[in-house]
Amino acid sequence: MSDSTGSKSDRTRDELAAEALELDAADPLRTKRAEFVLDDEVVYLDGNSLGALPRAVAGRVADVVERQWGRLGIRSWTESGWWTAPERVGARVAALVGAGPGQVVVGDSTSVNVFKAVVAAVRLAGRDGGGRDEILVDAATFPTDGYIAESAARMTGCRVRAVDAGSVAAEAGPRTAVALVNHVDYRTGRLHDLPGTTAAVHAAGARVVWDLCHSAGALPVGLDAHDVDFAVGCTYKYLNGGPGSPAYLYVRRDLQPRFDSPLPGWNSHADPFGMAPAYTPADGAARGRVGTPDILSLLALEAALDVWDGVAVEAVRAKSLALTDFFLRCVRAYVPAGRAEPVTPAAHDERGSQVSLRCEPDAERVMAELVRRGVVGDFRPPDVLRFGFTPLYTGFADTERAARVLGEVLAG
Amino acid sequence: MSDSTGSKSDRTRDELAAEALELDAADPLRTKRAEFVLDDEVVYLDGNSLGALPRAVAGRVADVVERQWGRLGIRSWTESGWWTAPERVGARVAALVGAGPGQVVVGDSTSVNVFKAVVAAVRLAGRDGGGRDEILVDAATFPTDGYIAESAARMTGCRVRAVDAGSVAAEAGPRTAVALVNHVDYRTGRLHDLPGTTAAVHAAGARVVWDLCHSAGALPVGLDAHDVDFAVGCTYKYLNGGPGSPAYLYVRRDLQPRFDSPLPGWNSHADPFGMAPAYTPADGAARGRVGTPDILSLLALEAALDVWDGVAVEAVRAKSLALTDFFLRCVRAYVPAGRAEPVTPAAHDERGSQVSLRCEPDAERVMAELVRRGVVGDFRPPDVLRFGFTPLYTGFADTERAARVLGEVLAG
Repeated sequence: MSDSTGSKSDRTRDELAAEALELDAADPLRTKRAEFVLDDEVVYLDGNSLGALPRAVAGRVADVVERQWGRLGIRSWTESGWWTAPERVGARVAALVGAGPGQVVVGDSTSVNVFKAVVAAVRLAGRDGGGRDEILVDAATFPTDGYIAESAARMTGCRVRAVDAGSVAAEAGPRTAVALVNHVDYRTGRLHDLPGTTAAVHAAGARVVWDLCHSAGALPVGLDAHDVDFAVGCTYKYLNGGPGSPAYLYVRRDLQPRFDSPLPGWNSHADPFGMAPAYTPADGAARGRVGTPDILSLLALEAALDVWDGVAVEAVRAKSLALTDFFLRCVRAYVPAGRAEPVTPAAHDERGSQVSLRCEPDAERVMAELVRRGVVGDFRPPDVLRFGFTPLYTGFADTERAARVLGEVLAG
Repeated sequence: MSDSTGSKSDRTRDELAAEALELDAADPLRTKRAEFVLDDEVVYLDGNSLGALPRAVAGRVADVVERQWGRLGIRSWTESGWWTAPERVGARVAALVGAGPGQVVVGDSTSVNVFKAVVAAVRLAGRDGGGRDEILVDAATFPTDGYIAESAARMTGCRVRAVDAGSVAAEAGPRTAVALVNHVDYRTGRLHDLPGTTAAVHAAGARVVWDLCHSAGALPVGLDAHDVDFAVGCTYKYLNGGPGSPAYLYVRRDLQPRFDSPLPGWNSHADPFGMAPAYTPADGAARGRVGTPDILSLLALEAALDVWDGVAVEAVRAKSLALTDFFLRCVRAYVPAGRAEPVTPAAHDERGSQVSLRCEPDAERVMAELVRRGVVGDFRPPDVLRFGFTPLYTGFADTERAARVLGEVLAG
């Protein structure tokens, strides 16, 4: 217990808590939290794994099930806009990743979209005719990208070479067909240099596929501005689409006529209801479609994207950096020295929207205890505590509390 | 208007209507209709395109959204059984297609599952080492199967040869790696010989992939009994999973250790949360998974499958044949000669659960008028009227009415 004048640690805590309240009061995004279903007893810092539920979703899904499916039935393919939903929802995602219209389609999983993009990029490099035969992969990639790249390599006569994401620019060479890079490292939260890497890969005569799973909805991506070739990403993290909601594929407009998908399902046909035995690809983003779109999940995502109305990604990024800066300060103030060391870079241009702390030897136990005490992050083996910051619903007082509880657990 | 003794056509109509009522009264499945949301003013004969909404779905989906996602959040991956849903729901589908447990996994679209199955079958044939190089495809296939088979062929060094589904048994030869066949033709409703074709393809040393989109939930399939190698199908037709609900993949148990997927996403890894850079495939049905499962749609499907509790597929098949027999009789009685000729076979062992009528030159207009009058089938170019019969919710009086209205439209 502190005496009446307060200990130094009490004063620190009081100052940080007061600062948090001031920051929250000045936060232009603070009203957005009310658009989500959240438990005020819990600090939810796992939006980089599963985004929180936007309030609009439940009603929309009920309407899709009960009215669109139950009452209108098959008429909804046209009357409720089901058939065109992959492109329509794609346009909503596009606006958040700096892509003009007609270049993003929503559907399938991230893994399946990685396959489409990597194979198509290899084909653009002329590998079918014996051209460039190397696929560069981010060595610290989220595993599925690496597994799928290996399969794409095997099926196109290429080989995979794993290099540090930061070295892709230097490693791309005359044999490189495509580089597959994560924009933000899922484990460390490091933000990679999308403009510089893209330019360097292009200078080497190759293509680049960016995996935006951990950046879309958290920071500006600028796909068009930086001349990115292909991009993929999920929609259940910072885009709050719900568990396993469909992923998306971006194909830059000028590449679309040459986009040669390895999964040419009937939904990507120029005249899908013509039921022709010969395949003729559709123009535009629809060429990235495969089978019948998963309407319930797709329209839940569409409802979830309504929370972005009137929100600039730049404002989200500014708050994200302020939150993670503040979290790092609070961690320094509250956590016993040496117990949890940041692995996320301090430099803003190298930081995504999460803070990862190395915590040996008991990271898994520590995270379980944090969750028990109402601070929800997650654990990634072998020793990483991850805390994701979603500016639309996470505040500074939440952030201070999370660091304080972490300090208590690590001091205990 | 008829006079007091009734015209011949009136007597025919009265007799068929009376017979329909008797058949409905004796129908052991008649109580099932109450488990679906249906408009009693409409005869819904498009369950072979989009199955009707089971009443249990709306409540289940609301629970998944509001409680599992909204309140439990990421804990639901374990606590609500999200992670294991692809195999759990797969087991429910398996029971309907004659597959023992552990062989069916739900996820992705039919097109994507065709790709997995055909490529895996080619690899089993040793094509990677220069083996058999021919993929036989049902010439009248639903188009996506053919398009995807072409892609699989291109990526494995094979060629596609299209033959009549009825000739696959005779055409499979020493160069055949795999035959991809539709169990029921989507346009004509013809049921192909799964046992005989499978045995003949095996005798030729090849594998077979059956597309069950138009048979699962409508008739017994017997995958295990007939030693089928691979099967795929959608879940939004006779399984009533909802628009674009996830598809499934069956890999026979003894082939699973050699099932070599072209889409080895992280969900198919033996230890997905180990996040290992090297891919090690899971055992069993999970090897057919790719990315994160689409939980909303998957659990909507799970709820939809509850309508099968206590229902034997054999009973559904018996009623289906009785319905389609009765429909054909009513069509003969009501439709002016030559205006709509059945293309669906009369023989029971060659008929699926739909009746297709050739109607020249105005099939599209006729179907639009039928829909306007409350009889919902669909049109397939160039000249086919399709009527799908779903024994769980379609009765004999519905059937008589549909044929009667068709007769009125065609006489008009």
